[in-house]
Amino acid sequence: MKIALLGMGTIGTGVYEIAQSLPDVEVKWVLEKRFQAEYITDDMNVILSDPEIELVVETMGGLHPAYEFASQALASGRHFVTANKLLVSAYGVELTKLAREKGVAFLYGAACGGGIAYLANLTIARGIDRITALGGILNGTTNYILDAMQTKGSDYAAVLAEAQSLGYAERDPSSDVDGLDTQRKLILASAVGFDRWFKPEDIPTRGIASVLPLDVTWAKTHGLVIRLCARAERSADGKVSACVEPTLVDRHAPEAAILSNVNYAWYEGEKYGLMSYIGQGAGKDPTAANVLRDVRSVSAGHRYMTSETCVPGVPDNASAVERYYLRVPAGTAIPEDWVQLPIHSGEWDVYETNPVPVAEMHARMAEIKSAFFAGIRRA
Amino acid sequence: MKIALLGMGTIGTGVYEIAQSLPDVEVKWVLEKRFQAEYITDDMNVILSDPEIELVVETMGGLHPAYEFASQALASGRHFVTANKLLVSAYGVELTKLAREKGVAFLYGAACGGGIAYLANLTIARGIDRITALGGILNGTTNYILDAMQTKGSDYAAVLAEAQSLGYAERDPSSDVDGLDTQRKLILASAVGFDRWFKPEDIPTRGIASVLPLDVTWAKTHGLVIRLCARAERSADGKVSACVEPTLVDRHAPEAAILSNVNYAWYEGEKYGLMSYIGQGAGKDPTAANVLRDVRSVSAGHRYMTSETCVPGVPDNASAVERYYLRVPAGTAIPEDWVQLPIHSGEWDVYETNPVPVAEMHARMAEIKSAFFAGIRRA
Repeated sequence: MKIALLGMGTIGTGVYEIAQSLPDVEVKWVLEKRFQAEYITDDMNVILSDPEIELVVETMGGLHPAYEFASQALASGRHFVTANKLLVSAYGVELTKLAREKGVAFLYGAACGGGIAYLANLTIARGIDRITALGGILNGTTNYILDAMQTKGSDYAAVLAEAQSLGYAERDPSSDVDGLDTQRKLILASAVGFDRWFKPEDIPTRGIASVLPLDVTWAKTHGLVIRLCARAERSADGKVSACVEPTLVDRHAPEAAILSNVNYAWYEGEKYGLMSYIGQGAGKDPTAANVLRDVRSVSAGHRYMTSETCVPGVPDNASAVERYYLRVPAGTAIPEDWVQLPIHSGEWDVYETNPVPVAEMHARMAEIKSAFFAGIRRA
Repeated sequence: MKIALLGMGTIGTGVYEIAQSLPDVEVKWVLEKRFQAEYITDDMNVILSDPEIELVVETMGGLHPAYEFASQALASGRHFVTANKLLVSAYGVELTKLAREKGVAFLYGAACGGGIAYLANLTIARGIDRITALGGILNGTTNYILDAMQTKGSDYAAVLAEAQSLGYAERDPSSDVDGLDTQRKLILASAVGFDRWFKPEDIPTRGIASVLPLDVTWAKTHGLVIRLCARAERSADGKVSACVEPTLVDRHAPEAAILSNVNYAWYEGEKYGLMSYIGQGAGKDPTAANVLRDVRSVSAGHRYMTSETCVPGVPDNASAVERYYLRVPAGTAIPEDWVQLPIHSGEWDVYETNPVPVAEMHARMAEIKSAFFAGIRRA
């Protein structure tokens, strides 16, 4: 199959390199402004007007012009494979509709899970089983930070700086540490697993930027480990809850064994039970390999990751409750039914709450940036 | 697709039930002697002579008549899907050859990993990447026993009896506890990942039947956990080593987080890095769901799990060495270059060895049934 590659950044270079070793995939064109070669063009029309191009791979990232290129490629009857979670979480409904109209593929396995073939497997599992819950540790940067704080006792700023110097964190780390990257991935997984396209603003999302060594210490002394977890659950009546938040997991839980920048993605089905996938959630080679897996799977006739009945939806967190570890500035008013007395007080009030509605916890803490909270999931 | 199902035992019943919910799969015939119904026959010829049957699923287990039925089904131009590791490890070379000659599929994803789509993913990964190592905890019964000994301090016989009463262990548990079930699965995985069909007798294999509470205690006090692990590795020059043995893993290693009867299957590729899969390695519904995944994948055009270059081979353990924990009856002679002095002596001599050739350790201990040894893999 002759393909075009949009963007020759880290992932794009990886895709180009691996494709050289595959007998059935030929990168005929690369869209890129920065380099020159016979196979490089800076004009999307060159690609669109080449009848030999059957499939377009997008690895540029960002919303624009990725969205315009995706629309053009699909409208022209080309299959489209992308690793761009921002693009798919924002325009997944529309691009899937366009792809279905044109009868071409729209796959984005590397956009959630990086090198882990999570969405590809979830797509297949969903066709056989009823998925009841899904989620995981979907961001390597935050896991690297939390793991280093936990195992080395370092503080947040020092570990973040170290992660930045290693290339594990962006210079502007907010998308990772605020949980937005994880949230986008949860949007993709929920669409595949539950047939609902959620919007970012509808998913209660809290990151780890406010975590302090004292939070880590509290976790440790209680046999718990802090992880940033995404989670969506479908109740018996079909409602789907979804949130992204720091979570205190048992030190023997699989999440606790996820170290450094490794990712952990899981789903649970009525037949399959709990199925988990662990691997590199980012990085050039793993992500590029997963992009090429999607390309191969287009050749094998695979077309869409969501079902025809997948529609825009809003998570229903009405019945989602959780016991929380909560640390707020001393004197912060806390609803009486959440908890009676702080378990520690000083500069910070620390609470272990009763079961509290997830949405309410997120909403109340939205303005208290220095607060840290984490759902407690004991084994 | 109209299919026939050979055997209505636990897995077969699961396949039949799940297939009822799938619009594209119809179980037209079930081969079974014990029950009667319109769709049940006890005559394989009824199935072979029905031109509507495109695919045969085998869930009877055992070598015969499974082998004869597989040959007949493939020879008659039917796709063949099986969950039978005994069949595939013994006749995989021949049945794959026959399937290729007839241009029909031969898939066996549920035969290694149960509900985990390990071989299916390994098949795809192998086509993109160079697999360098693979293995895992591939037997739930032994993991249940080891985990219970580790966490509850019970002794082997008591836990085995409990596992038998829960249906996690067979009345004759030897295939599980002696590592033979794991070994058969490693044969399948090595064929897919490394293009080599190994024979059972060529893979150094040691089970857990001799494990004592004192071995578990030694592991615990050293921050280690005992697991029964399969492992095959490909060296830079293409040689593949393979063995099945108890292994002492760091208590923070992913293997240590695999509890109860859960399975853990992994592979490592030059591009992908380490990819791991955790889930139900046995049981009616997960295994049946995975069988139907293979059926679906035949519809999608997938045919074989091994490549055309896959040939019979012998594992090369010449350069495989390992440090071992070793417990032998007091006074047992141990090669001097393995270790100088026991770290404990009494009824048993306990050693932590220098790096010892894997094949030599297995060979020397083959006759000492009461001995227990485990490769030490610290983080």
